[in-house]
Amino acid sequence: MPEERLKQYSALVEAGLERYLPQETCRHSRIFEACRYSLLAGGKHIRAALLLEFYRLCGGQPEDALPFACGLEMIHTYSLIHDDLPCMDDDDYRRGRLSNHKVYGDATAVLAGDALLNRAFETMLSQRTVAAEPAMRAAACIARCSGLYGMIGGQVQDLALEGKSASDEELREMVSLKTGALIRAACVGGVLLAGGTAAQQQAAEAYADALGLAFQIRDDILDVTGDRAVLGKATGSDAANDKTTFVSVYGLEACRGLVRRLTLQAMTAAEAFSDREFLQKLAEYLARREK
Amino acid sequence: MPEERLKQYSALVEAGLERYLPQETCRHSRIFEACRYSLLAGGKHIRAALLLEFYRLCGGQPEDALPFACGLEMIHTYSLIHDDLPCMDDDDYRRGRLSNHKVYGDATAVLAGDALLNRAFETMLSQRTVAAEPAMRAAACIARCSGLYGMIGGQVQDLALEGKSASDEELREMVSLKTGALIRAACVGGVLLAGGTAAQQQAAEAYADALGLAFQIRDDILDVTGDRAVLGKATGSDAANDKTTFVSVYGLEACRGLVRRLTLQAMTAAEAFSDREFLQKLAEYLARREK
Repeated sequence: MPEERLKQYSALVEAGLERYLPQETCRHSRIFEACRYSLLAGGKHIRAALLLEFYRLCGGQPEDALPFACGLEMIHTYSLIHDDLPCMDDDDYRRGRLSNHKVYGDATAVLAGDALLNRAFETMLSQRTVAAEPAMRAAACIARCSGLYGMIGGQVQDLALEGKSASDEELREMVSLKTGALIRAACVGGVLLAGGTAAQQQAAEAYADALGLAFQIRDDILDVTGDRAVLGKATGSDAANDKTTFVSVYGLEACRGLVRRLTLQAMTAAEAFSDREFLQKLAEYLARREK
Repeated sequence: MPEERLKQYSALVEAGLERYLPQETCRHSRIFEACRYSLLAGGKHIRAALLLEFYRLCGGQPEDALPFACGLEMIHTYSLIHDDLPCMDDDDYRRGRLSNHKVYGDATAVLAGDALLNRAFETMLSQRTVAAEPAMRAAACIARCSGLYGMIGGQVQDLALEGKSASDEELREMVSLKTGALIRAACVGGVLLAGGTAAQQQAAEAYADALGLAFQIRDDILDVTGDRAVLGKATGSDAANDKTTFVSVYGLEACRGLVRRLTLQAMTAAEAFSDREFLQKLAEYLARREK
């Protein structure tokens, strides 16, 4: 705990992904392989777990929310594939493996990303376990958070900041969209899907905002101090060198303090739920994680 | 007629697109501009018109289906933007203007495409005029038709056929997915949205399949005989030279016959609707079109 529960959610999600993106042996097999290569690359499925947990906290059976949790993972994965493209961040590696376009070529990577984004909505809209009304509300929230006013807006800002030294405020805004928006989609989406109250929705938002920012700052710390920093140097990735990050703006020590403060903030927001243990332990776990 | 009705639908759709993709003056203005550049490039909005008309034929008010018609146009436009990318078809021109990435760069074009696909679902899912149940069914149908088992599947096949001489059967299958699937989404989506009968859905499918294939064959004819053929040569586009098309497989005369036969087939399918005039005239109009 929370690793135990996270593993259970993760196993549920991986089985769901197998179901919603079935292996095809027809002439499209290459693009299916490309989709699955990135989708089943051993991520922690934090976003999916958050959606399932908030759905549970608002009275639902996690299994019933699986098409939405899996949809969210497909959206997250498509954004990573497109982000790594040569015309975007130009990253050769992702999670310690070659990035999608390095294995399958740029054209297939573009289409695999498109396919995953599409399949995410198809999966959410074709499900029959959650009633149409809350399902629409949750899917609309996820679409809003992943689009131009959410994650894609953050990717646009990220590109615009490239090569410039970003201000503290610009960095926070970019991160709250690029990383934060999907975490917000997960937490709020789970509440909406279960027909939760406005108060539960607010608590979910507050938790998501604090957790999302802490997550990104911890990520920036790990890019400098963790295994990834070594890997980054070995593979010539410049993720840790060129870009403005929280570490480059505040320095390592201040960043560690920020992560602690934001984690406490997330834990306080979780107090709105009596059965808050997983949310709080997850926040602590993510703040301490080493990769 | 049908130009008159088509123009009315088109005006409705353009006003809808303005509403669903509002001009932003914040720091993301460049990507909004990129989305609008391709979305409002003066297309005929055939897909949107078909959705609105089938919705009307099944008892709905076209205005109420506008978020779905506009969503479909956004999906169509995103696919063109990504199709034109250097790593895909590498086309410098689209509808007689520079393609999106030639104006805004590859990174913005990738994100503009992503943003339009996302925004399409956001628009369909956020609407409040059509009840949640039929809205979900229509949006799921559109997602299925535009995804891996539909349009994107066709794009994958198209890439796989590049540089090879495709068989008649391969060409038909590719076109029925790449071009046909969205036309099917439009016709069947309109019926589903209005809660139409199974018989209406079948008639919509039969109409769409015949119209979609006729549309593509006419397109291939125009690539060789029309203004586009001249433009293609002037701009160095190799669309008309390298690829297997219906014209390269069957020759011009046989293609003209095929278009006539398929148009008759579409007109017969339209007979399932008593108020069939627009559907039939539209099929004739598209078969005769010069661009």
